[in-house]
Amino acid sequence: MSLKWISLLLLLQLSCYFSPGSAGKVLVWPTEYSHWINMKTILDELVQRGHEVTVLTASASILVDPNKPSAIKFEIYPASLTKHDYEVIFKKLVDTWTRLPKDSFWTHFTLMQEIIWQFSDNALKLCNDAVLNKKLIRKLQESKFDLIFADAVGLCSELLAELLKIPLVYSLRFSPGHTIEKYSGGLAFPPSYVPVVMSELSDQMTFMERVKNMIYVIYFDFWFQTFNEKKWDQFYSEVLGRATKLYELMRKAEMWLVRTYWDFEFPRPFLPHFQFIGGYHCKPAKSLPKVIWRYDGKKPDTLGPNTRLYKWIPQNDLLGHPKTKAFLTHGGANGIYEAIYHGIPMVGIPLFADQPDNVAHMKTKGAAVRLDFDTMTSSDLLNALKTVINDPSYKDNAMKLSRIQHDQPMKPLDRAVFWIEFVMRHKGAKHLRPASHDLTWFQYHSLDVTGFLLACVATTVFVIIKCLLCCWKFAKTGKKEKRE
Amino acid sequence: MSLKWISLLLLLQLSCYFSPGSAGKVLVWPTEYSHWINMKTILDELVQRGHEVTVLTASASILVDPNKPSAIKFEIYPASLTKHDYEVIFKKLVDTWTRLPKDSFWTHFTLMQEIIWQFSDNALKLCNDAVLNKKLIRKLQESKFDLIFADAVGLCSELLAELLKIPLVYSLRFSPGHTIEKYSGGLAFPPSYVPVVMSELSDQMTFMERVKNMIYVIYFDFWFQTFNEKKWDQFYSEVLGRATKLYELMRKAEMWLVRTYWDFEFPRPFLPHFQFIGGYHCKPAKSLPKVIWRYDGKKPDTLGPNTRLYKWIPQNDLLGHPKTKAFLTHGGANGIYEAIYHGIPMVGIPLFADQPDNVAHMKTKGAAVRLDFDTMTSSDLLNALKTVINDPSYKDNAMKLSRIQHDQPMKPLDRAVFWIEFVMRHKGAKHLRPASHDLTWFQYHSLDVTGFLLACVATTVFVIIKCLLCCWKFAKTGKKEKRE
Repeated sequence: MSLKWISLLLLLQLSCYFSPGSAGKVLVWPTEYSHWINMKTILDELVQRGHEVTVLTASASILVDPNKPSAIKFEIYPASLTKHDYEVIFKKLVDTWTRLPKDSFWTHFTLMQEIIWQFSDNALKLCNDAVLNKKLIRKLQESKFDLIFADAVGLCSELLAELLKIPLVYSLRFSPGHTIEKYSGGLAFPPSYVPVVMSELSDQMTFMERVKNMIYVIYFDFWFQTFNEKKWDQFYSEVLGRATKLYELMRKAEMWLVRTYWDFEFPRPFLPHFQFIGGYHCKPAKSLPKVIWRYDGKKPDTLGPNTRLYKWIPQNDLLGHPKTKAFLTHGGANGIYEAIYHGIPMVGIPLFADQPDNVAHMKTKGAAVRLDFDTMTSSDLLNALKTVINDPSYKDNAMKLSRIQHDQPMKPLDRAVFWIEFVMRHKGAKHLRPASHDLTWFQYHSLDVTGFLLACVATTVFVIIKCLLCCWKFAKTGKKEKRE
Repeated sequence: MSLKWISLLLLLQLSCYFSPGSAGKVLVWPTEYSHWINMKTILDELVQRGHEVTVLTASASILVDPNKPSAIKFEIYPASLTKHDYEVIFKKLVDTWTRLPKDSFWTHFTLMQEIIWQFSDNALKLCNDAVLNKKLIRKLQESKFDLIFADAVGLCSELLAELLKIPLVYSLRFSPGHTIEKYSGGLAFPPSYVPVVMSELSDQMTFMERVKNMIYVIYFDFWFQTFNEKKWDQFYSEVLGRATKLYELMRKAEMWLVRTYWDFEFPRPFLPHFQFIGGYHCKPAKSLPKVIWRYDGKKPDTLGPNTRLYKWIPQNDLLGHPKTKAFLTHGGANGIYEAIYHGIPMVGIPLFADQPDNVAHMKTKGAAVRLDFDTMTSSDLLNALKTVINDPSYKDNAMKLSRIQHDQPMKPLDRAVFWIEFVMRHKGAKHLRPASHDLTWFQYHSLDVTGFLLACVATTVFVIIKCLLCCWKFAKTGKKEKRE
């Protein structure tokens, strides 16, 4: 076969995998900071493939900058917050979360819930601003979008999907206690071998660790509420004019693109409408001139002449530099994935959110040393760095994770875009929707069926005993009569 | 960019997805009939990609014909059965299973277990013949295979994998009651929305259907044994010289390639070491001269002049013929998938094994009408055919399933081969192995943890009540003393 023919065959084969059919119109409900950074990777790819991407942007938005030149469209709506208000809210959220007391489980999570509820209240304000803006909604309806794409923790997108009658695709790193994944995604997290997110446990648990994990499960299932659900339920019900629950509406998502993969996660059950796309934002490094350091404050007097300060550095290129030996990180999921991609061992100093868990995962997989920000000394830091640099097992394990990341049937970004395009092509992915979404919690856990079967057994046993007693009585009376 | 450059880029991209690294050596433990036919598709593809494939063949083997010209190697070992014995056993198995009484649940499954145990006993004989053949095992050990590939219901491959110290990949359609998938694969099948295989239920169950499903779950979990496990446990323990259980050894499988997909299955939970590759044996049809009929018996006198009889027909090409309107099938998984692939509505007359369930799936998805072989009349057959041909919903639904089958990120055969090659490249896929494999059944269900927590709660309540009682007594005595 000539090269020309092979090329033609390859072209046909590829077109059968990637062809998006006709270009689609994607509406995006964005979330700020790192959530926006990694979502943008997917949006850029969608634009690259000829789709029209419109980001519904609040005038208060921080990182979503509609003034930066971009092929992405921005539909700006006036918000009841200013950009400054919004920045202050986020700064407070991060500052407070970072400083949460760690000695008391109860206080820790009660305060965490308070912080997230403040965030949730602000999200509700922005949702209110968008959804009650009749002119905006009419414009969006007339635009005839094919799909809405959003971060599942961003909230509001499920309501917009309902109002615009278009399918919804979520992206997600995690929700506290996996609440969203459980109650809206339909996933099960068996407490015996799936550590609850934020517990910092691994999948190889001792008995007491499994007890701890179970306590986390019970706590998150019965006490902790990720969002102030009542408020959302009420708002959604008002807007739609029918009793609506946030978590039930979120079940409408056709596809969940989870921003992790099995290099990072411990194997756990999932459903066919979940795709694990972790590492999709990573790419080969561009060359760097020398080793550099990012620092955004006053230059310390004690700084050696071999250390340079930069306000911003291309982290991915730095991690991909052949001379990079270790990655000192706060443990954000994006950074962790860049280290995995390039096979760099880590020293993790987690601050908040999923960061302690992310570092715990890397530690379990032998690719990181964890330090405690509140208690560590400079010699702890030095020793940790020496360990991951000099003990070859850390590099080996980081390279193992890197090989898992690179050796996938299809690149995670291509997979993410494939499923978004699939939902547009087929106007949904109903064939992947689990039937459990239509069950109540007691039906899902088969409590009604178990109760019924137990009642049947009890009745049968009761009837048999009654019959036996009757027979026995009858026999006794017979005997007595005979004797008499 | 010129076409040449595009081709080069495509070549690079493809090679990054499919490159098997260096060629590997695959040992195959085969299973007969349809199981062999669909396994061979994967073996041919492996050979095509430069791997060396050796099938360990019993001299009694039926369909695995080492004399047919093939690029696949056959390593034949003498069996304690003749080919004729083996054929008789299979014929009896199929004949008896087809005629199982359907009116009594208990009798039906007890007899089914008997039949499968006969099959299991014969499989044990062949396993014995292979494993105790020292010369053969030494030769296999010296051949340094990279992987063993087998049908999970074939048994023995897990023992060979252990003896040869090589990773194992399974292919599987189903096991009765999902026993193998549960106890060796680690999957959970929530009875509330996952119908048990062989129950002919769908995922949309009424209350009484959920009760029925639960009864099936209980029956298969506590009574039914797919294989005569005791015999296998004993044999495996003897050969390995340590206490070994069949189902535990089967957990060693690195990857499970399940021969269904979400066009056929109802969405249900699975684990990352499961891949659903249903439809991988299907391919575009080659042209046919006219519509034909396969029949392997005496030509009936009443046969019309427009019906032709053939001993064998190319079923896939026939189903892919543009004039094919309907598929009259016994409901075997291979045939069902060919109909899905080509979007042909079906009339199913199931006989045994997974066939009733396969047809039930297609019926639920609106692509088939089901007939009962024991009770159907010729007019039933005519009406069923008329229905699927004339009611456009059947064709529409069949086409919908076909679109789902065709619109995957990667073709199922490529995916199957990718994961086989992955296991060879990485000498396993340990990162996908669920930690539940190392737990006992009561740990897996968190019974120890729940018991411990309940004991803690009970102790606490007991101590509090004791203290309160003490205080009350003390207060009472104090009052009495005061009064005195």
